[in-house]
Amino acid sequence: MKELLEAMRGRRSVLRFKPDPIPDADLEKILEAGRWAPSYANAQPWRFVVVRDQEKKKALGALVERILVFRPGRVALSSSGLGEAPVVIAVVVDPARDPLHYREAGAAATQNMALMAHALGYASFWAGVAGRGEVEREVKKLLGIPRSMRVVALLPLGKPAYEPEPKERLPLSEIVVWEEFSPNTG
Amino acid sequence: MKELLEAMRGRRSVLRFKPDPIPDADLEKILEAGRWAPSYANAQPWRFVVVRDQEKKKALGALVERILVFRPGRVALSSSGLGEAPVVIAVVVDPARDPLHYREAGAAATQNMALMAHALGYASFWAGVAGRGEVEREVKKLLGIPRSMRVVALLPLGKPAYEPEPKERLPLSEIVVWEEFSPNTG
Repeated sequence: MKELLEAMRGRRSVLRFKPDPIPDADLEKILEAGRWAPSYANAQPWRFVVVRDQEKKKALGALVERILVFRPGRVALSSSGLGEAPVVIAVVVDPARDPLHYREAGAAATQNMALMAHALGYASFWAGVAGRGEVEREVKKLLGIPRSMRVVALLPLGKPAYEPEPKERLPLSEIVVWEEFSPNTG
Repeated sequence: MKELLEAMRGRRSVLRFKPDPIPDADLEKILEAGRWAPSYANAQPWRFVVVRDQEKKKALGALVERILVFRPGRVALSSSGLGEAPVVIAVVVDPARDPLHYREAGAAATQNMALMAHALGYASFWAGVAGRGEVEREVKKLLGIPRSMRVVALLPLGKPAYEPEPKERLPLSEIVVWEEFSPNTG
C-alpha cells in the first residue's frame, strides 16, 4: 500500500532523458504492467508498439512538439526530449475490439506502465495523441498502424535527466462531491 | 515493485460485495490515489462523487444492469451487485478543463483508485458509462451532475462477497509490436 501510494505520488512527468538503454528484463516488467490493465469485458483492445529506432523516435519527437505548439502557454517541451528516450511505447487500441471504451482501456494500460516504470527508476511523460487529428495520422503512418486503430498515447521511457519539481494537485475538498452535486458544486 | 505488480495482477472485477462499511481513513486513501493520477498539463478535470445513500446506489445498480442488457453474452451482472456495495464512486470529468483528453484522465484516476482499493483489501468493478447515451444522462440526473460534464465510470467498492476466478490475458507476444506494424501484425 505504501509502495503503491509512493508510485502514484512520486510519478511525475519528466521531459528529458539520459540515453542509457533499458534492459530487456525491465522493459518486460513495464509491458507486463500494461498487459494486466483492466478493459471492458476483458476485451484487451491494446497493442504496445515498442520503438527504439533512433530515426523513428526523432520523428515522433517532432510530432509531439507539434501537439504542444497548438497549446501555447502550457509546458514547454523540447522535441528532443522524446527523441532522446531509449524507448518510446506507442499505446494503440483497436475500436473493433471495444467500440465504447477503447480510450479508457488504453489509458488504464498507459497509467499502469507509467507507474511500473517509475517503480523501476525510470521517468516518463504521457503524450496524448487520440483526437489530435493530423498528428495522430502521422504517428500511424510512421509506425504502420492500421487506419482503423487509434493511438491513445506515446510514452517515452528512460532514466530522468533532471529532478522534476514536486507536483501539485487540488485538495480533496475541491474534487470530492458527497452524494450529489448541488447548485453550489461544480 | 513487487507490491505494485501484485496490485495490478491481483485486482480483478468482483461483482458482489459484503455490506461492511468502508472506514473513512481507507476511503480517503482511495480518493487520494485518484487525486494523484496524471492529466494533460495537470488539468485535473475530475470530480469524484462518493455515493453511500442506499436509494441512490440501488438506482445506479439498475442503470448498470441496463448497460449490460445491451451487450448480451457478456458478464452476467446482477443489478444488486452495485447496490450492495457500501460505497460507489462516480468518476466525473469536465471537458471544459481538458477538451481533448478528459476520458483518459478519468480512466487514469479510476485505475489508480481501483488499484489502491485492491491494495487495501477491497474489491471493485469498473462500469464504463461515458458513451452510454441514455444511461449516462440518467446517472447525471440522479447525482445532479451538470449536463456539460461526462461520467467516465462508476466504481463500486466493498469487501468481496466471493473469490473471483483468476483472470486471463493475451500473452505479450500477441500484444507487443516491435518498431512498427507489418502487414502481418494487427
